[in-house]
Amino acid sequence: MHDIAILGAGRIGRIHAKNVASQPGLRLKYVVDPVAAAADGLAGETGASVADLETALNDPAVAGVIVASSTDTHLDYSLKAIAAGKAVFCEKPIDQDLARARSASGELGGKGVKLFLGFNRRFDPNFQGLKARLSAGVVGALETVHITSHDPAPPPVSYVKVSGGLFKDMTIHDFDMARWLLDEPVSEVFAAASCLVDPAIGEAGDVDTAKILLRTASGKICMISNSRRSGYGYDQRIEAFGSKGLVRADNVMESTVSIWGENGAASDAFQNFFLDRYAEAYRREMAHFAEIIRGEALPSVGYVDGVEALALAEAAGLSAKTGQVVKL
Amino acid sequence: MHDIAILGAGRIGRIHAKNVASQPGLRLKYVVDPVAAAADGLAGETGASVADLETALNDPAVAGVIVASSTDTHLDYSLKAIAAGKAVFCEKPIDQDLARARSASGELGGKGVKLFLGFNRRFDPNFQGLKARLSAGVVGALETVHITSHDPAPPPVSYVKVSGGLFKDMTIHDFDMARWLLDEPVSEVFAAASCLVDPAIGEAGDVDTAKILLRTASGKICMISNSRRSGYGYDQRIEAFGSKGLVRADNVMESTVSIWGENGAASDAFQNFFLDRYAEAYRREMAHFAEIIRGEALPSVGYVDGVEALALAEAAGLSAKTGQVVKL
Amino acid sequence: MHDIAILGAGRIGRIHAKNVASQPGLRLKYVVDPVAAAADGLAGETGASVADLETALNDPAVAGVIVASSTDTHLDYSLKAIAAGKAVFCEKPIDQDLARARSASGELGGKGVKLFLGFNRRFDPNFQGLKARLSAGVVGALETVHITSHDPAPPPVSYVKVSGGLFKDMTIHDFDMARWLLDEPVSEVFAAASCLVDPAIGEAGDVDTAKILLRTASGKICMISNSRRSGYGYDQRIEAFGSKGLVRADNVMESTVSIWGENGAASDAFQNFFLDRYAEAYRREMAHFAEIIRGEALPSVGYVDGVEALALAEAAGLSAKTGQVVKL
Amino acid sequence: MHDIAILGAGRIGRIHAKNVASQPGLRLKYVVDPVAAAADGLAGETGASVADLETALNDPAVAGVIVASSTDTHLDYSLKAIAAGKAVFCEKPIDQDLARARSASGELGGKGVKLFLGFNRRFDPNFQGLKARLSAGVVGALETVHITSHDPAPPPVSYVKVSGGLFKDMTIHDFDMARWLLDEPVSEVFAAASCLVDPAIGEAGDVDTAKILLRTASGKICMISNSRRSGYGYDQRIEAFGSKGLVRADNVMESTVSIWGENGAASDAFQNFFLDRYAEAYRREMAHFAEIIRGEALPSVGYVDGVEALALAEAAGLSAKTGQVVKL
Repeated sequence: MHDIAILGAGRIGRIHAKNVASQPGLRLKYVVDPVAAAADGLAGETGASVADLETALNDPAVAGVIVASSTDTHLDYSLKAIAAGKAVFCEKPIDQDLARARSASGELGGKGVKLFLGFNRRFDPNFQGLKARLSAGVVGALETVHITSHDPAPPPVSYVKVSGGLFKDMTIHDFDMARWLLDEPVSEVFAAASCLVDPAIGEAGDVDTAKILLRTASGKICMISNSRRSGYGYDQRIEAFGSKGLVRADNVMESTVSIWGENGAASDAFQNFFLDRYAEAYRREMAHFAEIIRGEALPSVGYVDGVEALALAEAAGLSAKTGQVVKL
Repeated sequence: MHDIAILGAGRIGRIHAKNVASQPGLRLKYVVDPVAAAADGLAGETGASVADLETALNDPAVAGVIVASSTDTHLDYSLKAIAAGKAVFCEKPIDQDLARARSASGELGGKGVKLFLGFNRRFDPNFQGLKARLSAGVVGALETVHITSHDPAPPPVSYVKVSGGLFKDMTIHDFDMARWLLDEPVSEVFAAASCLVDPAIGEAGDVDTAKILLRTASGKICMISNSRRSGYGYDQRIEAFGSKGLVRADNVMESTVSIWGENGAASDAFQNFFLDRYAEAYRREMAHFAEIIRGEALPSVGYVDGVEALALAEAAGLSAKTGQVVKL
Repeated sequence: MHDIAILGAGRIGRIHAKNVASQPGLRLKYVVDPVAAAADGLAGETGASVADLETALNDPAVAGVIVASSTDTHLDYSLKAIAAGKAVFCEKPIDQDLARARSASGELGGKGVKLFLGFNRRFDPNFQGLKARLSAGVVGALETVHITSHDPAPPPVSYVKVSGGLFKDMTIHDFDMARWLLDEPVSEVFAAASCLVDPAIGEAGDVDTAKILLRTASGKICMISNSRRSGYGYDQRIEAFGSKGLVRADNVMESTVSIWGENGAASDAFQNFFLDRYAEAYRREMAHFAEIIRGEALPSVGYVDGVEALALAEAAGLSAKTGQVVKL
Repeated sequence: MHDIAILGAGRIGRIHAKNVASQPGLRLKYVVDPVAAAADGLAGETGASVADLETALNDPAVAGVIVASSTDTHLDYSLKAIAAGKAVFCEKPIDQDLARARSASGELGGKGVKLFLGFNRRFDPNFQGLKARLSAGVVGALETVHITSHDPAPPPVSYVKVSGGLFKDMTIHDFDMARWLLDEPVSEVFAAASCLVDPAIGEAGDVDTAKILLRTASGKICMISNSRRSGYGYDQRIEAFGSKGLVRADNVMESTVSIWGENGAASDAFQNFFLDRYAEAYRREMAHFAEIIRGEALPSVGYVDGVEALALAEAAGLSAKTGQVVKL
């Protein structure tokens, strides 16, 4: 049985805390959160203790640390936890600033570093199924990819202002998916972006709608479509075009119920957002973290992936601003 | 070029007349209909002449006769046209009365008789595709079949009264499909029937909702579901369960358009009724009739099929009335 | 926190034991199983103790008993547990013998008896969604129902011999679904049954393929389709036809992945069997059992439902044997 | 009855000729083709006469001319036919050279000019249905569009060499769809293009794979995906994202047949290419041409649309070559 400390008792921290509980071999020992009520609440529900960061990191029984605190602390806490000899499960992004993120390369960039970066989509059963077919050559050699990633509804502008912008906050996931699927470096980035959903987002200096094209040296092309608002729930789809055919992963509905009426067939609603769609992905993340702690696996996604996705986000931001292609 | 006479210028007659026009090698010469306005109208549209039955049958240039007149004339006109040496394309049913239909067995039941009975569903591309997979053994040996056949809305009670009843008017098509797919004689019939759609249908002595089970000597089972009203258009589906899997033919929508909204995905409307759903089937029927006229094929469905389907309809009616299984 | 004893540490017992663990407010205290290795194994995994039946029933801390032992013990254990003042979650069926089941009506048939019968399908999110739409009148008044329930592959003949036969072992679930959806008593049963899957099943005196028609006094009709082998996984579908349209619950696939190739679009596999398809149903069953223990709800399905489903199974068996309709 | 002359008796000419025959009010009088065998063959099948261009244009009975000859003759023949007072149905593209196409603006660019340009996709029932929903505001205000347009297999390199290149030969259709759906001028074009399908296409100086982004002044964005080879038939899909939801038009399968087996559900094949997919679109084009001839409608798509689509194709070609965004 390995003890775990969780940093951050917010929405995503609570999900991870519950998944620790149901993961054989892991036990939640500490909840660390500057908001006492949040820490107390989660500790009470899980039987863990509230602690401060030092206590958690100094306890030799703690084998793993989950960094689910605010984005600006991700890098710092990860560095401290790694320095303390803990395995780390850090929520994305590793940081909002590319230069700062890169500066930790000495401590975090090594092959054996047990820093697992929580790009949840890599653990979604649908996307894992798609990736497995691609790797097995079911559709031949990969040529191009379409990633559709639209949120159900825009966040409050207050969030947008501290989010790092669409590309670092939202597309960051899609950049990671693109890197995972393309499996070779991106050499060109072009982003066409607009503010069509909420003028307040534009006034805050951000965009809410974008299509991004990524191109690799060998000519593979990936298109990413983003919108802060779909009107129909969480739109999370991938199409990968290969030399022999297409492999797709589609959206997930609430159930298989449908109604047939005079206007045709109507499905059940689309799953609304990430808590539903990626519930199983979060469970699989925790299973992977348990493997890392037990020394059975190295992180399948880590610091370097975080930095590279961030680099693509910065390039996309630059392209959207200048209207020009950005070469990497 | 072969000349054709059509008997009956009503809804179904008009469809066949147009398909004659577009069928290479056929030419519509005569339209026969006691309603002068109908005959004149169709003749005017197609360039054919209005004639009486004798003229049409005595004209040696006429190679084929299409019997699309009222049901009570089907058998008589078919007999006359066969006697006159014409190939015959007779709309279903061959007759509403089983004994009378059987009495024509000497004239119409022979192998070489050129009487093509228009069971249109055998010519639907979807059902033909299903049958082809079954015959090719794609799902192994056939075990059971589900035929769903619901009309969009009930006909007027005036029609119901002369229709011969649900089993002879509507299920007759499904009995033919069952015979075609089961490919062995039905030995038991059980029908559970109700009047749920329109009480006036019940008052007229008929039912509007039924599930029928057919069983063959070898144990194959077919379920037929009928309703005079679906609420969502024409429901025409088949599922055939085999030893290795299932082959299905589904309904057809107006288009591939769908709308995704907060309540889920909504398709376009289902095709509403047989004129849409079986448009291609009617064209393929005419192509088959042209083959028969040219001597390239014998009727793939004919008098015997009409009689056998009628026998199943009578058995179902008896079962529904007595509440007992009917053995054949 | 309420303590639970589980009787039976086999496949289904293990599922329930894990769901007790993840259900807030419930704690597994005892595992009872005559097979010591099974009891020890499950106790070890869950932290519960191995005990005999008397110990479990005599412990006043035990609030609920889960009867997941062999079918022939269901009724006896349920009676004992109820007598001991425990809430009971009994796996289906209540018994294989209708007369014996009925004989417990005094002890188990009362309104307030806390006997929850585990008809899992009532807790499947898809079927619950379908039922909710029906109850809300989304498709108008219910007229007829199609229940398709095919297993992926037949069980060993040794199991078939002690199973009580297809209707009591397999269709029992569908009879319960039919009762739940029709919401009025069935007055007529007709079953057409065959042995098409495995001749050894026929030699054992059972059937492996059946279509059953149920009819209510008001004329509603339900068709149940059963096969011991589908060739494509677990086929668990319902279509409910109403006066305004159709509501369906479809099968569940392993994922939303599909492959497009020269032969068309190919989905991922169908979920193979009940452990996958009804995993969420089992969780919801346990949540309901927790409500019952806490006194927040009476069993939504119980002894009477078990007896009535068994009565339909006996009627279907009689109908299949005599070839006649059975009136209830 | 209006007489029609068709210029070009190749594959597309033959389709149009047959649609003239089945269009009430139109009659094919002349077939013009320098290849005598082709002209004779089509004339024989349709009952038309072989003629030279002058005869056809000088015959006052000829009301309409269909230009289905080789691409380099489209502009010249259209000019001559318009000058002769005929209504013209010109196959796309109007020309391969933008400057030359623009030079005809005086003769062809006027509002009342009866030049109908055959962008067939505007007449596809699926895309018309999508456009109708957009126009009706079913998904709110249009924001972005995805057009997927992949051919089943690459053409011979000999064709590629004279095709004008991917953007003018293939994407030209998609540019027209984009213009039709966006309904406002495109201000920026970026194309990422590769040669991934057939190296010989690259050696011929062309690309076979491309993703193109179009942006309008108001910020609407359209993505076009092209490949010369899909591996699964003709991929012709559109997704239009609006402020309230998504409207899609999907591919069309050969039939509604599907097979359920141990690997899941397999549909029938996708329709393979444009002759199948756009058969109904060609019929609707001819119905529109008949309206134009009868003076009941002006061309819904004409010379200006051809020039504008060509301008987008040139811009895309430039962008692909320079790797930079092209502003219009």
